[in-house]
Amino acid sequence: MSLFSLHGGFTGLAASSRVRLARNLKGYPFRLTPAQHSEIADKVFSALRGNPTIGPEFEKKQIIPRSTEASQLVEEHLISPELARNGGWLIVSRDGGVSIMVGEEDHLRLQVIGTGLCPKECLETANRIAALIEATLPFAYDERLGYLTACPTNVGTGLRASIMLHLPMLTATGGINQLAGYAGSRGCAIRGAYGEGSQAVGGFYQISNQITLGASAAELTDKLVETATAIIDAEKKAREQVRSQNEAALRDRVCRAAGTLRSAYLIDTGEAIQCISDVLVGLQMGLLSGVEPQVLYGLEQRIRPAMLTGAPQERDQKRAALLRETAQSLRFA
Amino acid sequence: MSLFSLHGGFTGLAASSRVRLARNLKGYPFRLTPAQHSEIADKVFSALRGNPTIGPEFEKKQIIPRSTEASQLVEEHLISPELARNGGWLIVSRDGGVSIMVGEEDHLRLQVIGTGLCPKECLETANRIAALIEATLPFAYDERLGYLTACPTNVGTGLRASIMLHLPMLTATGGINQLAGYAGSRGCAIRGAYGEGSQAVGGFYQISNQITLGASAAELTDKLVETATAIIDAEKKAREQVRSQNEAALRDRVCRAAGTLRSAYLIDTGEAIQCISDVLVGLQMGLLSGVEPQVLYGLEQRIRPAMLTGAPQERDQKRAALLRETAQSLRFA
Repeated sequence: MSLFSLHGGFTGLAASSRVRLARNLKGYPFRLTPAQHSEIADKVFSALRGNPTIGPEFEKKQIIPRSTEASQLVEEHLISPELARNGGWLIVSRDGGVSIMVGEEDHLRLQVIGTGLCPKECLETANRIAALIEATLPFAYDERLGYLTACPTNVGTGLRASIMLHLPMLTATGGINQLAGYAGSRGCAIRGAYGEGSQAVGGFYQISNQITLGASAAELTDKLVETATAIIDAEKKAREQVRSQNEAALRDRVCRAAGTLRSAYLIDTGEAIQCISDVLVGLQMGLLSGVEPQVLYGLEQRIRPAMLTGAPQERDQKRAALLRETAQSLRFA
Repeated sequence: MSLFSLHGGFTGLAASSRVRLARNLKGYPFRLTPAQHSEIADKVFSALRGNPTIGPEFEKKQIIPRSTEASQLVEEHLISPELARNGGWLIVSRDGGVSIMVGEEDHLRLQVIGTGLCPKECLETANRIAALIEATLPFAYDERLGYLTACPTNVGTGLRASIMLHLPMLTATGGINQLAGYAGSRGCAIRGAYGEGSQAVGGFYQISNQITLGASAAELTDKLVETATAIIDAEKKAREQVRSQNEAALRDRVCRAAGTLRSAYLIDTGEAIQCISDVLVGLQMGLLSGVEPQVLYGLEQRIRPAMLTGAPQERDQKRAALLRETAQSLRFA
């Protein structure tokens, strides 16, 4: 286990958690030249490398605009689509748990990712890393407003905490729409994790805080976790309702999805995510066994288009091979 | 192996063969009363039971019109839908290989079934059984016309020889239509084995002789086998063509079908037959292994609606359980 691997309590329905802090450096204008980006990346990298414990964990990469590597980093959630388009720098820990973008709309975008429901743990790590940088590179800070950011929606804490949730049955029953309203009333937003707008392929959603001001980062994160927990409970209830309505049909669906993952020779991303979603439901409801849900959440990342090279049919073939390998261990309970 | 189990050369694409001889008894009118049916059934049964070798193999059953047992016997191809509707008698060997209907449009309909391509073997057995009956119960015979039958289309040999063929690729490419014309020019007809008219679910067809007069039963059977063999060769060519166009897509299709049979918890007859068809192609083309094609041809009979009792979802569940049991042994080659 490497230094920054964070694991939250496995409720099973939270795939991963993420915290991002937006920070800008005192003494620099908001808009920087490529030369200044390079200079800042060097300084941040030196500040981290100077620490004997965590320093050796980090490496620095230049992001070449619109490169294949840039697309892959976007799908690994290590850089934003904007940085992939415009170029800049990435300072990243070996395990990918901590990453710092230089050249996004803020000077620094510090991100910590963990598996399961762990935004609090991610925030603690992010605060430690930020403090280490701030010791040599003071941040732009206002006594009244807090941390200053390029966009006013980030001012204050500069915090964006988010949790990836798997809510297939709330999607099927339409209950997700009411819960989106509930989340909004608590200063949180729910978005489909893949696909455009509200279309959530496989029932994967991201819930995040929308307010960055007027409360501490810790308070905002606590509220997000509470909201997510209420939504997870609603999904669990929806699943039991589906089970009580027609258990045989539910079992058929999850078993067929397992069968497809175990046997398909060609599979596109959409069908693969749908099957992973159904198999996750089966594992979490005791209808399937043999694979840890976290393995499937991880696999879901590795099968996305830019992660696989070649012509479309070749990618479908590689994707199917990756899925078959893991799915062989699935057992019908 | 029981007495009448016939097995032909396994070309693999011939599921089964069947020969039927229509015979009527001298001294009876064509249209009989139920009491006469019962009397004839007794006489035929006695004639067979009198033979020490094959006698003990046979049993006699009364067919109750529109009973569940009658429907099952229709799907086992042991009686005709007409006999199931109107009632009558069945004298049948323990293995189902030889069966005699009493009460169809002819007094006797003697049928011999075997697996694979074996109409000649079936005809030999049918002739032996017919001779045994004829020794005590002379048949209505005319020197010029041959055996007399209720319907003029059966006069002469009273023969209907047929072969169940599995032709999924000729169905997909449409080549089956030309071959139906070819078969017609040789006095044979091709019909979809399941489903109405030309719709052949899973690509299963029955080819049979259409002419019963002007040649011996053996000559007619030889011609049928030659015609079927030419069609089988065309199907094999069509398969290799499909393989050469996109082997990965073909492999995907047969592997997914295997996955569905191995994992579905509910499955209806149509999907089951389609999956069995795809898996058969996989086994015969070396993409799958672990199950004998003949086991699947047999399974295809056992999963039909009347063979399974209960509400529709219950039947789908029993069908899926039967299929999973066999499909567990399937391996990807």
